[in-house]
Amino acid sequence: MKFNIAVLAGDGIGPEVMDQAQKVSEAVAKKFGHEITWKPALTGAAAIDAVGEPYPDSTHQVCLASDAVLFGAIGLPRFDNDPSAKVRPENGLLQMRKQLGLFANLRPTFTFPSLLDKSPLKQERIEGTDLVFLRELTGGIYFGEKGRRDGGETAFDNCVYTRAEVQRLAKKGFELAMTRSKRLCCVDKANVMETSRLWRETVQAMEKDYPEVEVSYELVDAVAMRLVQWPNSYDVLITENLFGDILTDEASVISGSMGLMPSASMGESISLFEPIHGSYPQATGLNIANPMAMVLSAAMMFEIAFNLPEEGKAIRDAVNKALAEGVVTEDLANGGKAYGTKEVGDFLAVNI
Amino acid sequence: MKFNIAVLAGDGIGPEVMDQAQKVSEAVAKKFGHEITWKPALTGAAAIDAVGEPYPDSTHQVCLASDAVLFGAIGLPRFDNDPSAKVRPENGLLQMRKQLGLFANLRPTFTFPSLLDKSPLKQERIEGTDLVFLRELTGGIYFGEKGRRDGGETAFDNCVYTRAEVQRLAKKGFELAMTRSKRLCCVDKANVMETSRLWRETVQAMEKDYPEVEVSYELVDAVAMRLVQWPNSYDVLITENLFGDILTDEASVISGSMGLMPSASMGESISLFEPIHGSYPQATGLNIANPMAMVLSAAMMFEIAFNLPEEGKAIRDAVNKALAEGVVTEDLANGGKAYGTKEVGDFLAVNI
Ligand SMILES: CC(C)[C@H](C(=O)O)[C@@H](O)C(=O)O
Ligand SMILES: CC(C)[C@H](C(=O)O)[C@@H](O)C(=O)O
Repeated sequence: MKFNIAVLAGDGIGPEVMDQAQKVSEAVAKKFGHEITWKPALTGAAAIDAVGEPYPDSTHQVCLASDAVLFGAIGLPRFDNDPSAKVRPENGLLQMRKQLGLFANLRPTFTFPSLLDKSPLKQERIEGTDLVFLRELTGGIYFGEKGRRDGGETAFDNCVYTRAEVQRLAKKGFELAMTRSKRLCCVDKANVMETSRLWRETVQAMEKDYPEVEVSYELVDAVAMRLVQWPNSYDVLITENLFGDILTDEASVISGSMGLMPSASMGESISLFEPIHGSYPQATGLNIANPMAMVLSAAMMFEIAFNLPEEGKAIRDAVNKALAEGVVTEDLANGGKAYGTKEVGDFLAVNI
Repeated sequence: MKFNIAVLAGDGIGPEVMDQAQKVSEAVAKKFGHEITWKPALTGAAAIDAVGEPYPDSTHQVCLASDAVLFGAIGLPRFDNDPSAKVRPENGLLQMRKQLGLFANLRPTFTFPSLLDKSPLKQERIEGTDLVFLRELTGGIYFGEKGRRDGGETAFDNCVYTRAEVQRLAKKGFELAMTRSKRLCCVDKANVMETSRLWRETVQAMEKDYPEVEVSYELVDAVAMRLVQWPNSYDVLITENLFGDILTDEASVISGSMGLMPSASMGESISLFEPIHGSYPQATGLNIANPMAMVLSAAMMFEIAFNLPEEGKAIRDAVNKALAEGVVTEDLANGGKAYGTKEVGDFLAVNI
C-alpha cells in the first residue's frame, strides 16, 4: 500500500526521536511492501519562530492531505513563564486537535516485565497492569466560553458537552472494550456536575447495544485513588477532557515505563500518533533521548490508522528485543551500557 | 475555657468513631481544665430519614451557635445508584460548606514510620512525606450555574472564581507556609483555563507580601504525576475546588495511612473537623472501624479552632503511643491482635 504521512516533529528532542520512527517505519514498509511518502510540516515553537503561529494553515493542509500524522513533541522553556500568552506552542496543539476533529485520545498504560523496578509503586501493585484511557479531546472546559467580568475581577470557564459528543467517544470505548476484556469504566463527577450526569445517562443508554460489556461508573476522585492503589484492576476507561488530562498523566507514571508510552488521537477521518513525553529541551541534540515511545506511536499508526496489525507487531517485537538485550538509552540503562538515540533506532530498524 | 461543640456524627461508622473522639476530647478537657458542651445534630442519610433533607436548618442553627463542628461521615449505599437525585447525603455536605462559608479545606498527608509498608508506593518514595493541601471549597465548578439546553441534549457547568475568593484562600496558604518550610505550590491549569490564570496572577501579586515564601506554579496534570513520583518534594499546595477534590484523594492513599488522616474546613468564623474516610457502611455497629482519623480531627480542632496546641499534641502523642504499642484496629493489625473501635478509644483517653 501507499501512504502519505505528515511529519510534525516539533521542538526539543522531537526531531531526533522522529528520525528513528521514520527509519523504523521505512524498515517496516520495505519488509511488508508498502511505500511511504513523508510530508514534513512545522509546528510548535519551530512554527512560531518561522511563521509566527504554532499551527499554521500550511501545516493544517499537510495534515488534511495525509493518511496519518506522526507528531513528536512541542514546547520550549522560554514559553513557560507566561501560560496566558496567546502565541504559545500548546495553543497550536489545542487548535490542531479541534481543526482535525481529533475527539478521542487513546492512551495505553502497561508494564514491561523488565521495567517493573522503575515504577514508584510496589511490584505487586502494578503486575499485570494493562489499561487504556479514552479521553475526550475536543470538548469540555477546554473549548467552552471563557473570559473575565467585573473589570477582570471575575473569571469563568464554561464546561459544555452535547449528547452526540459523549456518544461518539463512548462508542469507541465500547468497541475497544469488545476487543479486550469487555470491561468499561466511565469516569465522571456525576454527584456534582451536570455534564457528568449527561455523560453517565448517555453511557447507561448505550449499554443495551453492547450486552457483553460490563460497565462500571466511578467518580473521578475515587479513580485518582484507585489508580495508585490497584491500577491492574482497570481495563478500558472513558472520560471527559479535563479529567482525562489529569488521570492519564497520573496513570503514565505508574508502570514506570513513561518513556515508552505512545498515544493515538483519533477523529472521524484523520488520526495522529505521538509519544506522551514532552520535548525534553535539555536533551536536545545530545543523542540521549529514548526513541521507543515515538517508535511505538508509529506502531499504533500501522495498527489503527492503516489497520495493519502485523506491521505494528513487527515494531513491538523489535522494541521487546531491544529491551531484552539491553539496547536502551541511558534512562533505562540501570548503570549498564547506554546506547544513543540513533543507535537504538538503528537496532530497531535492523530487527524489523 | 468553655466550648460548645456541634456533633454531626452522620451515617455508617460515623457515630461510633465520633463517640471515641468525644471521649478523648473529654479526657483532654479534664486534664487541661476546659469544659465542653456537646450539641448533637442530624446530618446525612440520618437527617433525610428523620426530616427529609440532609442538612436541615435546625442543624445549621446548631453549627452557627457552636465554637466548632465535629463531623463524622455521611452516605449510605441506597443513595449510590442515582448520583443525580436531589435528596442525597452529599448535597447536604455541599449546602453545609456553602452556608457555613467553609472556604478552605485543609488536608495534611504525612507518613507514620510504622505504617510505611501500608503504602502502595515504595518506601524511598514516601519517606519524609509531610505535605498539606489547601483546597478551595465553596467556589468553582461546584457552585457555578449548571443545567441543560436543547431539550436536555446539551449540558453545561460553569466554573467561576473572583479575585477575592482566590485571595482569601491563598492568604491561608501563605500563612501556613510561613509556619512550615516556607514553600508554597499553586496548582492550576493556567495554560488552558481563564479561572486558573486569575488564580495564578492573584497569587503572583501576593508574593511580595510574603518575601520569605518560595512560590512555585505547577499544572494540575504535572502535580498528578509528581505526587506519585515524589510526594516528599511538596510542602503546602493550594488549589481550586475540583482539582483539590481529585488531588487530595490521590494524595491520601500515598502515605498508606489513609485511615488515620484528619481534615479541617475553615471559614471566616466557624470551622469543621472530619476524618477523610467515608461512612464505611459495611462496618456499621461492628466495633471494627479505626477511630484514629476522627480522633486526630479533634486534635486539629483544639489546635486550629481553639488555638490550643498543647491539647492537640496530647492527642497526637496518645495516637503515636497506641501505634507504637500495637493498640490498633484490624486495618492496622498486620495479622497481630486487633482491638475494637471502643477499646482503641479507651486507650487513647486513658493516655491523654
Ligand atoms: C499542553 C496542554 C494544553 C495539554 C492538555 O492539557 O491537553 C497536555 O497537557 C496534554 O495532555 O496533551
Ligand atoms: C461527596 C462529594 C460532593 C465531595 C466533593 O466532591 O467535594 C467529596 O468527594 C469530598 O471531597 O468531600
